Amino acid sequence: MKYGYFDDRAREYVINNPETPYPWINYLGSKNYFCLLSNTAGGYSFYKDARLLRITRYRYNNVPIDAGGKYYYIYEDGEYWSPTWAPVKAKLDYYQCQHGLGYSVITGERKNISTEILYFVPVDDNCEIHRLKIKNNGSSVRKIKLFSFVEFCLWDAYDDMTNFQRNLSTGEVEVEGSTIFHKTEYRERRNHFSFFTVNSNISGFDTDRESFIGLYNGFHEPQVVVSGRPGNSIASGWSPIGSHCLEIVLQPGEEQSYIFILGFMENNPDNKWSSCGGINKDKAYSMIRRYNSDIKVDNALQQLKSYWDDLLSGFYLESGDDRLDRMVNTWNQYQCMVTFNLARSASYFESGISRGIGFRDSNQDLLGVVHMVPERARERLIDLARTQFEDGSTYHQYQPLTKEGNNEIGSGFNDDPLWLILGTAAYIKETGDISILNEEVSFNNGKEATLFDHLLASFNHVVLNKGPHGLPLIGRADWNDCLNLNCFSTDPGESFQTTTNKDDGQAESVLIAGMFVTIGPEFVKMCRFIGKDEIADRAQSEIEDMKKAVMEHGRDKNWFLRAYDYYGNKVGSIDNNEGQIYIEPQGFCVMGGLGIESGFARKALDSVKERLDTEYGLVLLDPPYKQYYPELGEISSYPPGYKENGGIFCHANPWIMIAETVLGRGNNAFEYYKKIAPAYLEEISDIHRMEPYVYAQMIAGKDAVNHGEAKNSWLTGTAAWNYVAITHYILGIRPEYEGLKIDPCIPEEWSGFYVEKRFRGKVYKIHVNNPAKVSKGVKHIKVDGEIIEGNLIRIPLENQARENVNDNTTQHIVEVIMG
Amino acid sequence: MKYGYFDDRAREYVINNPETPYPWINYLGSKNYFCLLSNTAGGYSFYKDARLLRITRYRYNNVPIDAGGKYYYIYEDGEYWSPTWAPVKAKLDYYQCQHGLGYSVITGERKNISTEILYFVPVDDNCEIHRLKIKNNGSSVRKIKLFSFVEFCLWDAYDDMTNFQRNLSTGEVEVEGSTIFHKTEYRERRNHFSFFTVNSNISGFDTDRESFIGLYNGFHEPQVVVSGRPGNSIASGWSPIGSHCLEIVLQPGEEQSYIFILGFMENNPDNKWSSCGGINKDKAYSMIRRYNSDIKVDNALQQLKSYWDDLLSGFYLESGDDRLDRMVNTWNQYQCMVTFNLARSASYFESGISRGIGFRDSNQDLLGVVHMVPERARERLIDLARTQFEDGSTYHQYQPLTKEGNNEIGSGFNDDPLWLILGTAAYIKETGDISILNEEVSFNNGKEATLFDHLLASFNHVVLNKGPHGLPLIGRADWNDCLNLNCFSTDPGESFQTTTNKDDGQAESVLIAGMFVTIGPEFVKMCRFIGKDEIADRAQSEIEDMKKAVMEHGRDKNWFLRAYDYYGNKVGSIDNNEGQIYIEPQGFCVMGGLGIESGFARKALDSVKERLDTEYGLVLLDPPYKQYYPELGEISSYPPGYKENGGIFCHANPWIMIAETVLGRGNNAFEYYKKIAPAYLEEISDIHRMEPYVYAQMIAGKDAVNHGEAKNSWLTGTAAWNYVAITHYILGIRPEYEGLKIDPCIPEEWSGFYVEKRFRGKVYKIHVNNPAKVSKGVKHIKVDGEIIEGNLIRIPLENQARENVNDNTTQHIVEVIMG
Repeated sequence: MKYGYFDDRAREYVINNPETPYPWINYLGSKNYFCLLSNTAGGYSFYKDARLLRITRYRYNNVPIDAGGKYYYIYEDGEYWSPTWAPVKAKLDYYQCQHGLGYSVITGERKNISTEILYFVPVDDNCEIHRLKIKNNGSSVRKIKLFSFVEFCLWDAYDDMTNFQRNLSTGEVEVEGSTIFHKTEYRERRNHFSFFTVNSNISGFDTDRESFIGLYNGFHEPQVVVSGRPGNSIASGWSPIGSHCLEIVLQPGEEQSYIFILGFMENNPDNKWSSCGGINKDKAYSMIRRYNSDIKVDNALQQLKSYWDDLLSGFYLESGDDRLDRMVNTWNQYQCMVTFNLARSASYFESGISRGIGFRDSNQDLLGVVHMVPERARERLIDLARTQFEDGSTYHQYQPLTKEGNNEIGSGFNDDPLWLILGTAAYIKETGDISILNEEVSFNNGKEATLFDHLLASFNHVVLNKGPHGLPLIGRADWNDCLNLNCFSTDPGESFQTTTNKDDGQAESVLIAGMFVTIGPEFVKMCRFIGKDEIADRAQSEIEDMKKAVMEHGRDKNWFLRAYDYYGNKVGSIDNNEGQIYIEPQGFCVMGGLGIESGFARKALDSVKERLDTEYGLVLLDPPYKQYYPELGEISSYPPGYKENGGIFCHANPWIMIAETVLGRGNNAFEYYKKIAPAYLEEISDIHRMEPYVYAQMIAGKDAVNHGEAKNSWLTGTAAWNYVAITHYILGIRPEYEGLKIDPCIPEEWSGFYVEKRFRGKVYKIHVNNPAKVSKGVKHIKVDGEIIEGNLIRIPLENQARENVNDNTTQHIVEVIMG
Repeated sequence: MKYGYFDDRAREYVINNPETPYPWINYLGSKNYFCLLSNTAGGYSFYKDARLLRITRYRYNNVPIDAGGKYYYIYEDGEYWSPTWAPVKAKLDYYQCQHGLGYSVITGERKNISTEILYFVPVDDNCEIHRLKIKNNGSSVRKIKLFSFVEFCLWDAYDDMTNFQRNLSTGEVEVEGSTIFHKTEYRERRNHFSFFTVNSNISGFDTDRESFIGLYNGFHEPQVVVSGRPGNSIASGWSPIGSHCLEIVLQPGEEQSYIFILGFMENNPDNKWSSCGGINKDKAYSMIRRYNSDIKVDNALQQLKSYWDDLLSGFYLESGDDRLDRMVNTWNQYQCMVTFNLARSASYFESGISRGIGFRDSNQDLLGVVHMVPERARERLIDLARTQFEDGSTYHQYQPLTKEGNNEIGSGFNDDPLWLILGTAAYIKETGDISILNEEVSFNNGKEATLFDHLLASFNHVVLNKGPHGLPLIGRADWNDCLNLNCFSTDPGESFQTTTNKDDGQAESVLIAGMFVTIGPEFVKMCRFIGKDEIADRAQSEIEDMKKAVMEHGRDKNWFLRAYDYYGNKVGSIDNNEGQIYIEPQGFCVMGGLGIESGFARKALDSVKERLDTEYGLVLLDPPYKQYYPELGEISSYPPGYKENGGIFCHANPWIMIAETVLGRGNNAFEYYKKIAPAYLEEISDIHRMEPYVYAQMIAGKDAVNHGEAKNSWLTGTAAWNYVAITHYILGIRPEYEGLKIDPCIPEEWSGFYVEKRFRGKVYKIHVNNPAKVSKGVKHIKVDGEIIEGNLIRIPLENQARENVNDNTTQHIVEVIMG
């Protein structure tokens, strides 16, 4: 069952039934000011940090599920309704929500009054625009009262939802003209405030929630709206809100437009008060003036669209498969940007309270954006490296505001260091900017170093932390935190990861070994490029040792083991009663080239197909754990079929896709791709439940009650890895240090495809033809009519960051014949 | 305006209008299992710890404010309603909520169907009973469907409201017969579960919230209730709930009774599973059998009533003033027990998330309960002492489950140590059990010590931490955390108390000085009783020094100063622009006897009356701070008139009442008493807003927008201190080490009063007569007809804890003539 459709031209997903199986959201904002907006106007806004600077209040897991948002109410003759359906839920004659790139438009009509509300955050500003157009489609004059509504959060979202003995006494507002200023704690240590305004005179307002809604009423029946009379309330403590009342008269056929702005503003501490004692509003009024007319809003929207068009134009596909094209050209890239911006902080499943920027997460996230925002990827790499210790271990998370490592979680996740190598390699391969290796970035202890020193420390951290089988020690956990082989937690509520009660643990990870043989060679290549051959040689020798260790001790009969536990027992072996086969090492070991020649790689991937494949994707392990094993940790804490315990943990699926391309099995690779790519799941939205335009972290596995049901949409490394899998490995348009490799691995039935890729300042228009209906293999490639040697378009590395990577004036025509 | 009335015979507050100005709640449970229940059935339950073991989910500061609770829905012929008014809010023909001692009864009637729901927690059990009686008051047969509803919390309330990426995948239930078992995480580290049952066959059930309510519906319109058809849903992840559906046929005049039980159960880890793989339910079924009939429920309720009757019978007053009698005999004592049980953890203003057992709080709370539960007070004193450091400083909080000091808050609140002396003194004076001083209780570092050693360390901590004026250093803050003279916080969101950036701070507290001269003599007396005269002499000399220091450096022209700040500037002086006079030192310095002879005490209390008195009580300071002073800390962070910044912070009001009795000014003392005693505020419930049967922490002061509006009801030291003020000082029935002192200080117009007090195993029936209409002064006292010397009924101290302090077989008649 579908709840909407893709409008590929407009790059929108258009929802035409408000009662989606879960609120389907969009992200407004791309730099500092963010807003989560559902298809019925639920959600909240924040500035930079979803915990510390939350602008509007939102209650997660509420009843109704999505209560609270940026609401408008229309009142006429004793009746009222919401043009976004929620919260009033009065039946609409027409409803539509367009989720576009950084904007959403929600249209509603009832009894011949229609509204269209455009919500967006201007590219370089810290506010959100709600432009509401209201039209009389009938033949009689209509007198309407329009009420707006936002509920302010008292900034620190955690405090806001726990410390009521204080915060119900602190709320303060000012009202001036049509602008409501929320200034709680401004008089003490905050030099910032928010405001909510409209470019029109108002007939009244409310700033106190209870006065507006009533103590015992829901959002669906605010007493002010029920009565049609604004309360002109001034909040003093309790819960400040912003609500305007506009009296609107519409002639038959008449349309009017109103621009509401919700803004965040910081003042200089020395200049925070106005001469008459109120807050200094000058900068706020300047901001308001930037958007107080339709033409200004149109321009800002156009600027936003150009921003996204430009970002997304770096890779363009025509495959003949609409669903694939829309994933690659629009939605997958869009999601990659969102995961890069937000890490795992704020979604409808991430409360914005507890998670910083993950070291492992962000290095992977940037795989999906390095072609769009290379400068920001570079900055992120440096920020990440700065939280690394001299021995190569890393803080597992850092705080976005302070960029300081998070001591509560600490270190000890032994896969973390390698991801920095992978992230750096991706950056260099995309941009050619090898100079980043010389970038000075100190270790966490302040010791001066270059980024290369960090990568060396990363590499060595694996080398110097090996266990009895010569495999890497796992530490607290590797990807993704849930296999906790040295942290035996037996007390409820204890952290599975930080209960490090087995500090002498010798548990080993075959996943890290697989990562090492996959990512290690990137380090070797980087060494060679900057003339550090001695290090390269030693590193290569370590990689060979690791390959040997995996082939000797890291294999079960038909697949790669997952780990050795604290006691030296195998994890992910046919000898186990549960959890006999895990997905991760099959992906990474094959990516690293293990067992290719011997056929073991093929056997491992065949086992994946046999044991892990389902209608809705590959489960993480099989069979799931039915009981809790303290020696395995969190993974066995989930009910069978959910999350890591046998759920379809989408993040790991593309590793298998990529591994399949290593074996040349394009049919399998693309089949796996389609199973979890959301655009292909649109028709089963009633089962899948999450947005059909973005990946979810997890789909319930075959042993779950709700097999096929997704959770945790939006913020997941799934986005970046699937983007890598489809573009670099299946379509095979893959940046390498020396240039652009063309190495497709596609379903045999495909006759070809067309890609435009922006790469190191030029645009490559790549026509791939597959006359022989092969999965893999390039017969020849012509660049601008000339056949090149092999399948690599050579472009030299650069010794400095390119000033404007998005310059795309030079084009090359590439013709590829597979066979 | 009133919303109900006191039923003094039944010891109930009876609410007859469901739309109270704020949800008016009651506490069910008195030992380990607790439930907060509002007058319309909102609220939640927990076992021992409101954060770690929350049984049902609740959303604070929600819209509607009190959404979520223990709901019942009645469905008939396509219509449905709530017999507790909320959440459906269908108009009732009759509504009543009786909040009694440990139980509540909510009655509702609509269209001739009436229900009466009795909610209570049995005295010694870990469950709550909801007995629902339903009656057909009409003349036709009625066919009804009754739906029950509770929403389970996934135990850790903080995790439950933040960590959705995990916890939406963990929910699990079992259903067996009429019982719904909530067993999330039972399969891993939890050996406990909850269940919801009814003593009747059911026609269906639901355990999945979305199936029952619908994704986009509120509690007021669950889709199952709207349709009248249970979904028989089995929760798998998301949000487990418990709902039964009962089909009921009622003949005209017929009444039926149904007993619902919500229980919490722990199993032995070795015996947690049943043979068929489900949870071991044996103990749960035993619990259910204890309450599955009306007679069993009647007995359990009777046991509960006896429990409370016994607790409250230790002090009984007949004053001729109903409002005073109901405060003293019932509601003040009841609130004292609740504050002792809950500390500051869980109320409608305390989220249960962040606050442990406060050292300062609990020592004061036990002043109000030591006559009711001396054994538990003794245990609490020992628990508190165990978190004390050898140098006398103390952890500011400890965790109720672990009894370990809370490192996040740490130590450094320099008033803390003295409260332990006060608490211990109160215990000894009430019980006579001087043996507690020899109780072995180690310091926090494990060093062995007696409780006396702790008191000595407490006393010395003040002595050894004095500032330039010989006054006690304040440390991070004294009562109550908001005057932070060494923690200059300039960053938003920083803790005002733990930002100890001025560790060299020499800021001094006149409040601690006042406490020292008030509480210090208690220590001296204890020393003398156990023959430690040398220590007593030294201590007395320190007290004299402190008195001198206060009289020299701790006074302003007309009142006592509050403090010296980091820079040595006065706080609470006429020389300040704001915050010229504070309430706390006026109370404690006069209690300590300072300035009595010189007349300064009178001047100080006259200043209190002049500067701090308002229609609704005494504000904490005047004038309030209009700007933030980093050197004063949190106190200046509140908007003027709220909380510590010039609010009527009720906790400190009884200090002035007591001080007034020291001066013999009974009129003033009782006037202050009446201004904040909730029973006297019943008629202004629309202004006061909080429950008229319990104190609130704060009433907005004269500079606040909402002067007279209370906040933070229930969990406040106000309860204990007002109980002390009225019983020990105004009525003057005051335990002393040597016996019971009779020392009333009452309004002159009173002609007398009658008190029964249980004291050290005997009952004293005290008739006080005031023929001369004096405020203070006892002419003579007869005990059992014999005139005694002075006004102290001498009873020797005991060298061991009394086995049964509540033995009240021996009675004495005491006749008191004032004059």
